[in-house]
Amino acid sequence: MQQSIGRLVSILYRKNQMYLNMALKRYDITAAEVPILTYLFQKDGVSQEELSVHMVIDKAATARAIQSLIAKGYVHKEKDQTDRRANRVSLTNQALGIKEEIMKVLLYWTDFLTNGLDSDDVTVMFSVLENMAQKAEQANFSEIGGLC
Amino acid sequence: MQQSIGRLVSILYRKNQMYLNMALKRYDITAAEVPILTYLFQKDGVSQEELSVHMVIDKAATARAIQSLIAKGYVHKEKDQTDRRANRVSLTNQALGIKEEIMKVLLYWTDFLTNGLDSDDVTVMFSVLENMAQKAEQANFSEIGGLC
Repeated sequence: MQQSIGRLVSILYRKNQMYLNMALKRYDITAAEVPILTYLFQKDGVSQEELSVHMVIDKAATARAIQSLIAKGYVHKEKDQTDRRANRVSLTNQALGIKEEIMKVLLYWTDFLTNGLDSDDVTVMFSVLENMAQKAEQANFSEIGGLC
Repeated sequence: MQQSIGRLVSILYRKNQMYLNMALKRYDITAAEVPILTYLFQKDGVSQEELSVHMVIDKAATARAIQSLIAKGYVHKEKDQTDRRANRVSLTNQALGIKEEIMKVLLYWTDFLTNGLDSDDVTVMFSVLENMAQKAEQANFSEIGGLC
């Protein structure tokens, strides 16, 4: 049987969620909230709309995760000064204070998975995965022919 | 910043779920039900316990997905003849009738993602992903040192 990327990705995704929930429990942060924090670590103060697009999930789920992070004191939200319809989301000092710790937790998972594997192969894997993720993000499902 | 496998896998997973929900809508099958069907396509009549382990999610979620597939007429469940505490899950003719179609949908996604990429690189990616998925499946989180 030809290999399916979906199956492998699904295993890695679910286990990564379990790992993040466990490793970040002491900060009261869930796996669902991690992509918001990591995006803000790179680009603080972006619009809620931009976070939704980055998360590749629906706006309601993004709003829920942001609300939860506000309640825990990790982010705050305010109206954009120039575009009053937009909300800007920013990190609090509490979040910035554990940034290094969170990044360490994320990289630990990558190290755990790639430990002992050929480093050239791992480099190739990252490059192919990056390419596929870009294609997936740009996928227009209505154009994936003959399947709907 | 060092690359994180979690981010790439997360994008690929979410988009794959969206694609599966769209492509299998005409059969009334959701992305959450696909892993059960594909496992049964390879190994029909396994125990519900084995399906839970394969799905890498909790037993309650597996039970819900199986219940949903029973309601739609795709699988049936019966007590094991030798071990009355175990339930065996099997495909119906209705499910077997669309097996080829489902496999085509899954492989189409893989083809879509890998189309145009160097085939040697794709082979390496599959091999590394397979290795990492095995490590992830065997991960004992309580032993991932220093993080909890």
